[in-house]
Amino acid sequence: MASVSIREAKEGDCGSILRLIRELAEYEKLSDQVKISEEALIADGFGENPFYHCLVAEILPTPMESQEPHVVGYGLYYFSYSTWKGRNIYLEDIYVMPEYRGQGIGTKIIRKVAEVALDKGCTQFRLTVLDWNKNAIGLYKSLGAQDLTEAEGWHSFRFEGEAMRELAGK
Amino acid sequence: MASVSIREAKEGDCGSILRLIRELAEYEKLSDQVKISEEALIADGFGENPFYHCLVAEILPTPMESQEPHVVGYGLYYFSYSTWKGRNIYLEDIYVMPEYRGQGIGTKIIRKVAEVALDKGCTQFRLTVLDWNKNAIGLYKSLGAQDLTEAEGWHSFRFEGEAMRELAGK
Repeated sequence: MASVSIREAKEGDCGSILRLIRELAEYEKLSDQVKISEEALIADGFGENPFYHCLVAEILPTPMESQEPHVVGYGLYYFSYSTWKGRNIYLEDIYVMPEYRGQGIGTKIIRKVAEVALDKGCTQFRLTVLDWNKNAIGLYKSLGAQDLTEAEGWHSFRFEGEAMRELAGK
Repeated sequence: MASVSIREAKEGDCGSILRLIRELAEYEKLSDQVKISEEALIADGFGENPFYHCLVAEILPTPMESQEPHVVGYGLYYFSYSTWKGRNIYLEDIYVMPEYRGQGIGTKIIRKVAEVALDKGCTQFRLTVLDWNKNAIGLYKSLGAQDLTEAEGWHSFRFEGEAMRELAGK
């Protein structure tokens, strides 16, 4: 039977990652918002000071199977900072293709992110989820995460486009 | 009259920044959560791959005044990433001492962050605020920010301590 490997993404994975980013946005009902390109993913993740890091879940067929290894999930993270507690890790996206769910691949990705976090001296591992995504919320809570919006009232704000340029006086 | 300068923080500012971090946490009614030290702020912000960047608001007395320049506010940010739109900036903390409010210092810090964001090719400028902090929410909205928790239902989740170590199997 095919096995699953969770490994660091390579430059050559950016095409597969972009395919999955689009699938995730469709699931979140926000696919019109995806503006990123494969070129931007390569430039931003594989330069000298990467803006993000990425893990991929890859299906490795047995030698008897004729398929190539293929990427069926990803977890994209970066390092953030808390002025209360120092280094954090932030999981921006996590996604597993629907036909590969129920095998614990998402949990494996989350566990690997927690490992990276501890290795890098982070004390917190954060992520954000849409309130209607009950499956994801159930999984995160079952793994020990706390909903800070519910518990402490944190709201997420954003400036973009014209508002950001006006702010900058540009 | 004294003037205000918004400038990049230097290593030597970390003591002042820590003082203001503690004041901000008290204002947020969460001061028991501050565990950071001046040494950690220096190591994490002024090494080769800094985990954060910081702006400080400094009061520059006129030559006639006997005071030294002093730091009365700060904005601490880092770069984050959106798989939809690429590079983002995230303002983790912004704080101005109560006796220096009402002079537009907070707005100056926010404008400077927006400038850095555009210079670095970021398309979004994000921040998080407690739902009861109506003054801050009013300011951000008046400057053009959108409340994403309200508009789209994003909730912030966190793993830490034992939950994170368990996840990592450590």
